[in-house]
Amino acid sequence: MPLITLTTDFGDADGFVGVLKGVIFGICPHGRVVDLAHSIPDGDIIHAAYVLRNAYLYFPPGTIHIAVVDPGVGGGRGAIALRAVDQFFVGPDNGLLAWVVREVEAAGEEIRAWSLEDERFHLSPVSSTFHGRDIFAPVGAFLAQGVDPAEMGPELRASLEPEGELSGGPVVDLLPAPSDPAGAGRVIHVDKFGNCVTTIEAALLPPPMVSGEVPGILEVETAGGLRQVKGLFPSYDSVEAGEAVAVEGSSGLVEIAVNGGSAAERLGLERGARLRLARP
Amino acid sequence: MPLITLTTDFGDADGFVGVLKGVIFGICPHGRVVDLAHSIPDGDIIHAAYVLRNAYLYFPPGTIHIAVVDPGVGGGRGAIALRAVDQFFVGPDNGLLAWVVREVEAAGEEIRAWSLEDERFHLSPVSSTFHGRDIFAPVGAFLAQGVDPAEMGPELRASLEPEGELSGGPVVDLLPAPSDPAGAGRVIHVDKFGNCVTTIEAALLPPPMVSGEVPGILEVETAGGLRQVKGLFPSYDSVEAGEAVAVEGSSGLVEIAVNGGSAAERLGLERGARLRLARP
Amino acid sequence: MPLITLTTDFGDADGFVGVLKGVIFGICPHGRVVDLAHSIPDGDIIHAAYVLRNAYLYFPPGTIHIAVVDPGVGGGRGAIALRAVDQFFVGPDNGLLAWVVREVEAAGEEIRAWSLEDERFHLSPVSSTFHGRDIFAPVGAFLAQGVDPAEMGPELRASLEPEGELSGGPVVDLLPAPSDPAGAGRVIHVDKFGNCVTTIEAALLPPPMVSGEVPGILEVETAGGLRQVKGLFPSYDSVEAGEAVAVEGSSGLVEIAVNGGSAAERLGLERGARLRLARP
Repeated sequence: MPLITLTTDFGDADGFVGVLKGVIFGICPHGRVVDLAHSIPDGDIIHAAYVLRNAYLYFPPGTIHIAVVDPGVGGGRGAIALRAVDQFFVGPDNGLLAWVVREVEAAGEEIRAWSLEDERFHLSPVSSTFHGRDIFAPVGAFLAQGVDPAEMGPELRASLEPEGELSGGPVVDLLPAPSDPAGAGRVIHVDKFGNCVTTIEAALLPPPMVSGEVPGILEVETAGGLRQVKGLFPSYDSVEAGEAVAVEGSSGLVEIAVNGGSAAERLGLERGARLRLARP
Repeated sequence: MPLITLTTDFGDADGFVGVLKGVIFGICPHGRVVDLAHSIPDGDIIHAAYVLRNAYLYFPPGTIHIAVVDPGVGGGRGAIALRAVDQFFVGPDNGLLAWVVREVEAAGEEIRAWSLEDERFHLSPVSSTFHGRDIFAPVGAFLAQGVDPAEMGPELRASLEPEGELSGGPVVDLLPAPSDPAGAGRVIHVDKFGNCVTTIEAALLPPPMVSGEVPGILEVETAGGLRQVKGLFPSYDSVEAGEAVAVEGSSGLVEIAVNGGSAAERLGLERGARLRLARP
Repeated sequence: MPLITLTTDFGDADGFVGVLKGVIFGICPHGRVVDLAHSIPDGDIIHAAYVLRNAYLYFPPGTIHIAVVDPGVGGGRGAIALRAVDQFFVGPDNGLLAWVVREVEAAGEEIRAWSLEDERFHLSPVSSTFHGRDIFAPVGAFLAQGVDPAEMGPELRASLEPEGELSGGPVVDLLPAPSDPAGAGRVIHVDKFGNCVTTIEAALLPPPMVSGEVPGILEVETAGGLRQVKGLFPSYDSVEAGEAVAVEGSSGLVEIAVNGGSAAERLGLERGARLRLARP
């Protein structure tokens, strides 16, 4: 029986996540559910897109990822299921799945998408405020039971490109464009420790910098102006406590950190801040 | 094997919830446990009663709900197991289960209750401060194993009415009385998004208002005085961003919301605030 | 299939815990995972050591406890697996496991330890910032699959004593020394309700005090100077609401509480504060 993961901004106080699981186990009694994150900031699609992109490769084939960060619930946004890299992704079509799509497209892997329109796979009636319970949880559970997504609604052109039908949402604006110079990027995620993950892939930096043989310098846009951070170093404690450091983070992206502290706080760094390689 | 749900104010920092699960799996090795909510505000019985009432109908028959928000632990309050609508409810008799009881009674469904007095189904010794671990978790696990609740202690008269033996706690004071006019009610729950759920059942409002054909007006008691909110509308974004809106929430109760924001904050709304239908 | 517990400071916003589970289920598809605590304050080894010490005895034989509060990740600290009381403990060797070790040693039970050096049981490559994912989760999953820990690396002298090779970290400094007078101790943990757990074992206090027949007096070091607290009483509500009370907490340790409130706040109590028996 495949795993089902849940990613939401539902928190742990209102029972929303528990209800999703009640619905899932009602349809798929032998399912196994894994919580990916439920303290996504309210409505923060970019945060959730990062969490999904960072996690999916660590799950076994067949895993079904249900993601519900859905500020437009009940309005006009679509509801989709994607199949890619032998996994499923289910959620609103608001950009939540856009980083996964972008990455799968870049790797040249096949990706297919369906619009979740067939009410046989939804609860009845469908509320206007809780599609997690009424659409996404039952759809995920039916996928786990082996239902073919092609039964659930019409197929979409599964691409973020102009000819595609998937929404890029606010996520793709932060991702590097092909025209960006190597080593340029943005802070895309601030984690709970205050580490600032960037969109710069460590492997694409100059080799002596990646190996740490000859640390380079990244110029980082902070609240207090431009600031230089050295790296890549092998670990947070390669520098003195309280000092800033650039490392290769656990997903292969360059991360700006402060040894023993919060880089976001100490450097005044926020999501969206720009960085570029000042000296390799 | 039935599901066991957990609802507590134990949070996620002290290991309390994990210990409940250790106890449950020790007794019932093949049990499946679902977290309903663990960030109930400390000792907030009303909050927990709402979460349970809102969730139980989405769980399969046989589910056992263990709820532990228990500010009077170790004192004189009773410990009970209820059976209703093919499910079990286990917890302190402090009002935590009162909304479920009220609803089941109103539907004319049978409800039975037992006082959890038989120590064979508790850990030994029973501490004075952690009955979740020592009484409620093992009782729930033994129920999942198929033990008859009649073995666990004497049966109670399972009613909130004067002739019954169940405690209504602080919950029933907020629920509508039979003498209340139609369309009058209270805010009973503020969720993590700031949406304010009321005790008014949407289905009982005038039909043109329910269908949204002719929106009515609700008069709402706020920190800044009386305020009028229009509804019912089909979704949060039926009004401009930042505007207040009344919708039918996901449990069939009228909900006061603000599109893209927190109604609790923007309108100064708190649990207990009164509402009434000003113009249908 | 044994249980696997997880104790971390990873929170619920970044997907870290979900990724651990993806890795675990990839290796051990039939594993069952229990969350012990994920809101340990960032890097707070003492807090985590308390949670583990308080929980492990409530888990069935064979349980594997993975604990990752790891401020020195990627630096020089070791990575270990312990076997004691028919359970496994996996984590960084930074003191996180020291209270369990101390307690098992005091009980005269055997304890064995291995240094996790064999890369066959790690993900590849191992990042420098996320050993939870790359080392501790896979090691725990392989233990659940029945791999002998002796295959995972060289055995260590499993003791906190000078001849041993395990780190006591910051934890052991707070635990009572053999030279301490009976009834003297420290606040070791402040729980989410503000209850202050001490290192004083209730069972070692004078019997009339333990039974509550003749309450004694504990002198407690607070922010506002020395303060006397009466106890042991049978439960929080043995005193008036708002009053301080000493009870036997759920783990057999003396706990300083305030009926219906937070002892930490009302008394100005912090971890590390000293207590002693003023009058038995």
